Amino acid sequence: MNIDAIRAAALRIKGHARRTPLLSSPFLDEIAGRRVLVKPECLQHTGSFKFRGGWSAVSNLDDAARKTGVIAFSSGNHAQGVALAAASHGTTAVIIMPEDAPTLKIANTKALGAEVILYNRHTTDRDALGDEVARDRGLTLIKPFDNADVIAGQGTVGLEIAEDAKAMGITHADVAVCCGGGGLTSGIALALQADAPDMVVRPVEPAGFDDVARSLVSGQIEKNASQAGSICDAIMTQQAGNMTFPIMKSLCGAGIVVSDDDALRAMGHAFERLKLVAEPGGAVALAAALFHPDTLTQDTVIAVISGGNVDASMFARALATLQ
Amino acid sequence: MNIDAIRAAALRIKGHARRTPLLSSPFLDEIAGRRVLVKPECLQHTGSFKFRGGWSAVSNLDDAARKTGVIAFSSGNHAQGVALAAASHGTTAVIIMPEDAPTLKIANTKALGAEVILYNRHTTDRDALGDEVARDRGLTLIKPFDNADVIAGQGTVGLEIAEDAKAMGITHADVAVCCGGGGLTSGIALALQADAPDMVVRPVEPAGFDDVARSLVSGQIEKNASQAGSICDAIMTQQAGNMTFPIMKSLCGAGIVVSDDDALRAMGHAFERLKLVAEPGGAVALAAALFHPDTLTQDTVIAVISGGNVDASMFARALATLQ
Repeated sequence: MNIDAIRAAALRIKGHARRTPLLSSPFLDEIAGRRVLVKPECLQHTGSFKFRGGWSAVSNLDDAARKTGVIAFSSGNHAQGVALAAASHGTTAVIIMPEDAPTLKIANTKALGAEVILYNRHTTDRDALGDEVARDRGLTLIKPFDNADVIAGQGTVGLEIAEDAKAMGITHADVAVCCGGGGLTSGIALALQADAPDMVVRPVEPAGFDDVARSLVSGQIEKNASQAGSICDAIMTQQAGNMTFPIMKSLCGAGIVVSDDDALRAMGHAFERLKLVAEPGGAVALAAALFHPDTLTQDTVIAVISGGNVDASMFARALATLQ
Repeated sequence: MNIDAIRAAALRIKGHARRTPLLSSPFLDEIAGRRVLVKPECLQHTGSFKFRGGWSAVSNLDDAARKTGVIAFSSGNHAQGVALAAASHGTTAVIIMPEDAPTLKIANTKALGAEVILYNRHTTDRDALGDEVARDRGLTLIKPFDNADVIAGQGTVGLEIAEDAKAMGITHADVAVCCGGGGLTSGIALALQADAPDMVVRPVEPAGFDDVARSLVSGQIEKNASQAGSICDAIMTQQAGNMTFPIMKSLCGAGIVVSDDDALRAMGHAFERLKLVAEPGGAVALAAALFHPDTLTQDTVIAVISGGNVDASMFARALATLQ
């Protein structure tokens, strides 16, 4: 896993993923006490950066594998990213989802062209079911983060950050990244090591799901005690991956932990000052930038808003923080 | 007023205004029954396209006039656009606002560097006050739409639409534009006449404020009967301008009228499918694209979301349309 893989993914993605800009607002700068730049991956196709990894993986399959199709486990952003990437390549995506997933998410994943297989969380072994379907139909599994092509795809976010910041004369920055399994974080870290070596990636997690922050301290992969209890559903991953953690350990600065309330308040500011819709797990990096200034080390902070797939009732909670 | 003025404004604006993309969602295409592309000017600096016109006007003043400063009447998006443009040029913007304008809007306009002069709507003649201040201090008045430099600045939206659509292979489209006084609409129409002559601009207005639609039918400037009663505050202009109407009469297709409920529903879809915050008056063009398919004539509709400056309580009403 190296920068060449990310540059190759960038070539495959060009013209397919959206080239998101770096946004700013003087009002956010004032809150943070430093310059704040925002990379709005909520504007990416399917509403999150996951489309990049999905496209990178599907586009790098050999012809036979791509023709047969892919399979993924997800009820969230990875499902939609893989579904649209596969459909755009004219191939099949099978997505294994729990049958109690929100009706809208199931409908959206189907509408993006995927074949959805539902399972009962209580009576079915998800991995066994996935293995069986993959084996029977010859499908290629696309894991959500511990996959070199996926990390390479997410790393294209870092190439764009480096390029756009350089054009603005910015070489030094904390780069705050919403962190679940570490695919986005490790990909960005690799890209910046090559193209903006004076920037330091700061993984950001919600309280109670700070396994990466703890892992960076202990030097080994730590797990979260719980699998539920935050509103930041997109990044409530139990632990970092065997591929992603060594990269983060080698390249990232200390992790930052924010509360769910911080995430909601950051969503409110993204609404008011940037006209963007962020989901809770996609807003934790902006929350770190705005509300945890003492944890940052540079005059500029670049915060990735990683996704915007949030329902109206949760967004209303974020709006309520503005009043 | 011609295409050369728009191209000159584009050169002055380059690197200062945000270059907004064309966004899309397969879900919006399905609702509309045709291809839908969205130009998100809510992502522009100050949250609306008005920054373009403000920058265009301030940057085109001669040195002496620019040094002295500018003045504008506005409690809305034009105020913020002019304020930031003037501040960025290191000059003064005086904004005349009613003293009962929302506290937040007054605070924002000041925070963007403007000097705000408040007046009592009931006891003070706004125009006389403005004339007096302008004369005493030698300030240049920047009107919100009936000003050649302002129209030229707004027209840069049209140059970008033409360029990006062409790159996607699209030459024919209805281009739906949120229309108040007609600065944005006439500017885009001039730009498209030159760079995408097979596209037709369709002014979109809220019910009760359809003066442009009626004017295009009668061939002369019609007025709205009321000055209040819609949630689309950004485009509740009493009548089109003496500069903007002849351009619209010559170049635009028929106007489209949408309800306030249509605008709220369009805001909901922009939230859910594009992760964008639109204000009611900024959402009427998307409302026309999604909910009034029979009024459109082409296989593609390009809708400009002209602004996103909406407060949380109004946005909550838009979210409620999704449930």
